[in-house]
Amino acid sequence: MNVSVFRRAHFNAAHRLHVPGWSEEQNRTFFGLCNLPNYHGHNYEVEVMVKGVVDPVSGYVMDMKVLKDLMDEEFIEPWDHRNLNLDTEEFKNLNPTAENIAVVIWNKLRKRIDMRFNLCIRLYETPRNYVEYDGQ
Amino acid sequence: MNVSVFRRAHFNAAHRLHVPGWSEEQNRTFFGLCNLPNYHGHNYEVEVMVKGVVDPVSGYVMDMKVLKDLMDEEFIEPWDHRNLNLDTEEFKNLNPTAENIAVVIWNKLRKRIDMRFNLCIRLYETPRNYVEYDGQ
Amino acid sequence: MNVSVFRRAHFNAAHRLHVPGWSEEQNRTFFGLCNLPNYHGHNYEVEVMVKGVVDPVSGYVMDMKVLKDLMDEEFIEPWDHRNLNLDTEEFKNLNPTAENIAVVIWNKLRKRIDMRFNLCIRLYETPRNYVEYDGQ
Amino acid sequence: MNVSVFRRAHFNAAHRLHVPGWSEEQNRTFFGLCNLPNYHGHNYEVEVMVKGVVDPVSGYVMDMKVLKDLMDEEFIEPWDHRNLNLDTEEFKNLNPTAENIAVVIWNKLRKRIDMRFNLCIRLYETPRNYVEYDGQ
Amino acid sequence: MNVSVFRRAHFNAAHRLHVPGWSEEQNRTFFGLCNLPNYHGHNYEVEVMVKGVVDPVSGYVMDMKVLKDLMDEEFIEPWDHRNLNLDTEEFKNLNPTAENIAVVIWNKLRKRIDMRFNLCIRLYETPRNYVEYDGQ
Amino acid sequence: MNVSVFRRAHFNAAHRLHVPGWSEEQNRTFFGLCNLPNYHGHNYEVEVMVKGVVDPVSGYVMDMKVLKDLMDEEFIEPWDHRNLNLDTEEFKNLNPTAENIAVVIWNKLRKRIDMRFNLCIRLYETPRNYVEYDGQ
Repeated sequence: MNVSVFRRAHFNAAHRLHVPGWSEEQNRTFFGLCNLPNYHGHNYEVEVMVKGVVDPVSGYVMDMKVLKDLMDEEFIEPWDHRNLNLDTEEFKNLNPTAENIAVVIWNKLRKRIDMRFNLCIRLYETPRNYVEYDGQ
Repeated sequence: MNVSVFRRAHFNAAHRLHVPGWSEEQNRTFFGLCNLPNYHGHNYEVEVMVKGVVDPVSGYVMDMKVLKDLMDEEFIEPWDHRNLNLDTEEFKNLNPTAENIAVVIWNKLRKRIDMRFNLCIRLYETPRNYVEYDGQ
Repeated sequence: MNVSVFRRAHFNAAHRLHVPGWSEEQNRTFFGLCNLPNYHGHNYEVEVMVKGVVDPVSGYVMDMKVLKDLMDEEFIEPWDHRNLNLDTEEFKNLNPTAENIAVVIWNKLRKRIDMRFNLCIRLYETPRNYVEYDGQ
Repeated sequence: MNVSVFRRAHFNAAHRLHVPGWSEEQNRTFFGLCNLPNYHGHNYEVEVMVKGVVDPVSGYVMDMKVLKDLMDEEFIEPWDHRNLNLDTEEFKNLNPTAENIAVVIWNKLRKRIDMRFNLCIRLYETPRNYVEYDGQ
Repeated sequence: MNVSVFRRAHFNAAHRLHVPGWSEEQNRTFFGLCNLPNYHGHNYEVEVMVKGVVDPVSGYVMDMKVLKDLMDEEFIEPWDHRNLNLDTEEFKNLNPTAENIAVVIWNKLRKRIDMRFNLCIRLYETPRNYVEYDGQ
Repeated sequence: MNVSVFRRAHFNAAHRLHVPGWSEEQNRTFFGLCNLPNYHGHNYEVEVMVKGVVDPVSGYVMDMKVLKDLMDEEFIEPWDHRNLNLDTEEFKNLNPTAENIAVVIWNKLRKRIDMRFNLCIRLYETPRNYVEYDGQ
């Protein structure tokens, strides 16, 4: 019996989309308003899925409190109320698109969660734009 | 042409997480506040997915009214405004974690829905914690 | 310049509606499923409104962190994952209807929030049923 | 690194479920209120998923602005504030069930989106009824 | 102690905005897409507020079950899955704008709810457009 | 017959809370993470209420398309994807708290909307924190 369990959290951050190797004009044309120099921001909502066998005694796949603490430690506390481009190591040299943010979160959690579990990240940049990454 | 159709419903219930074979202390440590003796409760939201071929005449996979009635009969009416631990047969000897509730719902509906359809259950315990089970 | 500021929080609790002075039949007829003896429960969502003058220096009406801490102290921590009828002093002799819960929250916060502010409580018992109380 | 990106949009339309080859009674029994002759309507919400490799330079799977424009052109502008049965070519001879609408949207977008991307459509007819189609 | 209690419900209907005394061009210019001749539709969400004294014995302002039944009888059942312009008496000679629909609901409920209660109607035409009427 | 009509819109922006006349330590203590120097951001949701008499011919209080255009012109287009502290005139010398943003929006719209209408602004900084200002 494999069940997926999901935990939702949020962080508020500033970011800007920009490729250093491109000209200003190329950046502005490609990323539009998301490239404006002084940053904008979002209320990011993150849903982490962990899929695995239900423990027959406890009835848990994984303790959601443990998962919540991992999420807080790995990206909620370090990124909340920060500027992703300026204040984080992860996006100093990586464009903080929703796609890249989801992949970075997946990589961080993958190291902390037992390999017998599948892992998938959904990241809402806005209620109308979101992405999903499961490591494949 | 395989299409998934989803129907959402809700029930309000009390429950408590507890493993009879564990000591009080073990239960309290493992389940935290969810183990408190006098029960707490949730507005459970359930989404049932049925996946199958679209009927070329009616344009339906399955009549949602039939699905709604099955859901009402199998778990909404028996569990709504009940205490899952005390008032139901299903959780008298099974810890009513979200995982187990989703599996029980899946097992109930699987018996009532034609095997040519795939079936998946998503259960929201809160807007921040939910689980999904598809029988595999 | 009077601005209203709102803070939202939640707690999960069990309850049962019951008037001790009424017969079992009267209770069952009047409160329906809400009167069932073994309790049911809800994910209660609470919105607290504080209305007052915007401080011209800070631009705040009231520090939302202070309000959040008051809410945690007064009713989130004491009631979360509890049985309102059995585990709280407030509802030992008061029927825990949504109306009464909102009034109790208002009374608790009114003692802690400066009288130069107006105060209003909105309590969602479910997404379809909610109440509001402003002390008048 | 395959990431799914999702874009949400909406349109408001009237429709009626009806199979021309069936008797009035058969239609009324099968489709219930959805068969009433003068149409009813919905705020349809559509989520389009495009899954593919993240471009290592831009950090995008696909420009969401391009996807938004395709959605506007293919079905939002032609269908918004229209009667699906009377005002569209697509549903003149096809029953506008949620299932069929999702399949039609998928077919329209599949022609416009590079085959290296997977495509999936989720269509909410109401917050309680929705369907999903991924072309398989 | 005056508490407001709210009950939410929904109905799905078709409508068209049109003033018979105006020219086709005037209607089309003023109402835009909402004037298109073959109707469009919405998932209308209605919130009814009843404000009054909390009964000191029951802890209720008004039985929400009674309010729900009144709402079902007065406008949910008659309007659900109908065309407001063609299928209802109320909007045969009254333009079914959100404003007018809210006023009509208020008038219907005002006759059925004791005058010791205040009454307010909120009607969502879409999640982005809504109106409110309290009889004043 | 006075009806309130509401229109919802959104913009994504970066900001930082900071009082120039205070020391760094005072700012950090008072505003917490909101004072961090490199900005953070939000998906701001704005609801504008306009209250007035329903026109007996059109059935409108005010054309929502006109209101939408005013909102776009006055604050959605100028602020969307901007840094409120650095990119706007309004918050160069005004701390961009939710309270102040709501007051600024109210002042902007008050000049553009006929005085026979009442005006109220609700601004969501997050789904858990919001403010309301009606000019009084």
